[in-house]
Amino acid sequence: MNVESLAIGTELLLGQIINSNAAEIATRLADFGMTHRRQTVVGDNASRMEAAIGEAVERSDVLIITGGIGPTQDDITREAVASVAGVDLILDTSYAEEMRTRWEKMGREFPESNLRQAYRPHGARVVPNAKGSAPGFGIEIDGCWVFALPGVPVEMTAMLDDHVVPYLRSLGGADEGVVVSRVLRSWGMSEASVGEMFDDIFHESENPTVAFLASAGVIKIRLTARAVSESEARKLIEPVETTVRDRLGDRIFGVDDDSIEAIIHTMLLRKGWTIATAESATAGLVASRLTGVPGSSATFRGSIGAYAPDIKTSLLGVSESLMRERGIVSEDTALAMARGVRSKLSADVGVAVTGSAGPSPLEVEAGTMCVAVVTPDGERSKTFKMPGDRERVRTYTATAALHHVRLALMGT
Amino acid sequence: MNVESLAIGTELLLGQIINSNAAEIATRLADFGMTHRRQTVVGDNASRMEAAIGEAVERSDVLIITGGIGPTQDDITREAVASVAGVDLILDTSYAEEMRTRWEKMGREFPESNLRQAYRPHGARVVPNAKGSAPGFGIEIDGCWVFALPGVPVEMTAMLDDHVVPYLRSLGGADEGVVVSRVLRSWGMSEASVGEMFDDIFHESENPTVAFLASAGVIKIRLTARAVSESEARKLIEPVETTVRDRLGDRIFGVDDDSIEAIIHTMLLRKGWTIATAESATAGLVASRLTGVPGSSATFRGSIGAYAPDIKTSLLGVSESLMRERGIVSEDTALAMARGVRSKLSADVGVAVTGSAGPSPLEVEAGTMCVAVVTPDGERSKTFKMPGDRERVRTYTATAALHHVRLALMGT
Repeated sequence: MNVESLAIGTELLLGQIINSNAAEIATRLADFGMTHRRQTVVGDNASRMEAAIGEAVERSDVLIITGGIGPTQDDITREAVASVAGVDLILDTSYAEEMRTRWEKMGREFPESNLRQAYRPHGARVVPNAKGSAPGFGIEIDGCWVFALPGVPVEMTAMLDDHVVPYLRSLGGADEGVVVSRVLRSWGMSEASVGEMFDDIFHESENPTVAFLASAGVIKIRLTARAVSESEARKLIEPVETTVRDRLGDRIFGVDDDSIEAIIHTMLLRKGWTIATAESATAGLVASRLTGVPGSSATFRGSIGAYAPDIKTSLLGVSESLMRERGIVSEDTALAMARGVRSKLSADVGVAVTGSAGPSPLEVEAGTMCVAVVTPDGERSKTFKMPGDRERVRTYTATAALHHVRLALMGT
Repeated sequence: MNVESLAIGTELLLGQIINSNAAEIATRLADFGMTHRRQTVVGDNASRMEAAIGEAVERSDVLIITGGIGPTQDDITREAVASVAGVDLILDTSYAEEMRTRWEKMGREFPESNLRQAYRPHGARVVPNAKGSAPGFGIEIDGCWVFALPGVPVEMTAMLDDHVVPYLRSLGGADEGVVVSRVLRSWGMSEASVGEMFDDIFHESENPTVAFLASAGVIKIRLTARAVSESEARKLIEPVETTVRDRLGDRIFGVDDDSIEAIIHTMLLRKGWTIATAESATAGLVASRLTGVPGSSATFRGSIGAYAPDIKTSLLGVSESLMRERGIVSEDTALAMARGVRSKLSADVGVAVTGSAGPSPLEVEAGTMCVAVVTPDGERSKTFKMPGDRERVRTYTATAALHHVRLALMGT
């Protein structure tokens, strides 16, 4: 059963709101194993709405429309659906009466324009709206079920959950049981290298399917399986997940929505350790990410943003001669900064960043960034040549520093 | 000129991510008076992508595609566009060489699969990507300009701003003469209050039109005029801008793309002053924003993230009795922190934040945040009750702290 969604609203085309309804619909269809092939957005314009509805009816088995069923003149989804279906709009007199009674009970005068909401294409069934005044409707057009729901997310999702999805399931809407996704989050390899590493699985594995997603240096490998039940789907994912983990090893740092900051926080809690940062080029980015985790005061001591070179000496105790001889941007300086902040702030773990974020070079080429981590168990440091502009260099370096903290805490 | 957008990505159809790119594109088209008629999403599937591209090419003058141009096997936008255009994919050897050189410089092995990104449909022009490795491209198919950009929002928006929109404007993309927008950026009032303040202009002014946009505490008032030339459009904007400035006064801190960080940097340079931050709840957010400005080493000294209370004493010299009597989250503590960091880091200006970011209350209700600024000319402090979750509270407070630095530097 192929389903598509159509959102109506000029405000979406002006970028004034984001189409979060499409994602809400998508999640539910995936949960119930229904195939979702296309999302469309058009404005409150009769001919463009009719064109979009007509195309979808031809292409798919189900169309879920959101928006355009309110009480004002620009709400014309009812008219557009009726036109595509070739039927008239009919007043639902009992619903009209119900609305009047509801307003009377609230002690408010009933605006006659509200009556628009009691009209429906001839032959359509009501989809009740428990959270708002605009009821939805469903109508079959040329073998395609068309549902019209409000654009207000809280009303739309309730109607989807309580009426539309159960109805589609009763029609046997799920093609192949449920769809389950498992996301493995990796750091330390480029998207291209991860893609190469799993070229065989990508081509051979049909269930689960394999996809790669990159964001800010983290490469996510998504395994998506269809099966008759969630547990069956997880069983299909398991062996492929094992292969992915075998090949990527330590580079897998989490699953699904895990963040590197939260993982570090948990690791520190388990060891009973605290952490502090000494940051030059990133000047607080690493610290602000570590403290984004609720409860981070249990593991985070503080940070020293040693931007000016003399502060590296006065606050972190980095010797001037070391910086002169090895360079302000050097792993030796980063290590000295990490040791310094660890002792100055009485933390168990010290993490430091020094570098040249650009655009102008500072002692070394722009994008050269050094990271160091010192723990009670040992020290590690690394130099990166980060491509991109100042913002990208700083963001990616903060991410790299956090991943080196994790590696250090793992003792690898 | 009719424009539509097409997002490629099975993750969108599974509801794993929201299509925020569509809204980013939409805002820009609206800003420049280009008509945006439709947004579509399809998955990483060749035949469905080709169908969607083909339909859009027939219907519109411009199609902006996002996603599917990375280096992995499931990135097939290049192939789909070439197929609709009826041309082959051609290897851009000079770009391939450039990529190899870039990887060599980073000291990393070049994954051959990265070469996928150097292929482009025959006849396509490169759209450079300053923030990532996948370049975009643009190609004319049957009178429709098709642009393919990455799905990563930060890369996509930069390419849109720097290349695609300017190109469309050069083609005369705006429908009726020239469209000029002027954005006045304000801080210190809610969107609703700003809206009420300008209700008269909103209804009376047809050219320029007035729109209000809120983001992270900053309310932007956008004046958009259409005229036969840019100078005519600016003449229409001028009197309305004067009215807006008269009413908002100091609350207007910049225009168009001005950032508060860059404005502070310029003000400090002019005075020959330096700045340092002392941050508890924001732990480096203010510092990382100040250092996001290229050249900030001329004005930024450093920062102390005094997260644990004892660090406020040991590093910033805040007395324990003050914190006990007035509270760790108090304007007095914030002022003591600002004075402390100013003297400790030998800076002219000290800015401090202390607060309870939530979700659990810390001494005071979650969302209570105190900000202080100390300059050679005087001191100021303020307490905010910030709504929302931890991330929102921290972000809005960092913004508030920066705006108080600006007010302090203005001497108001």
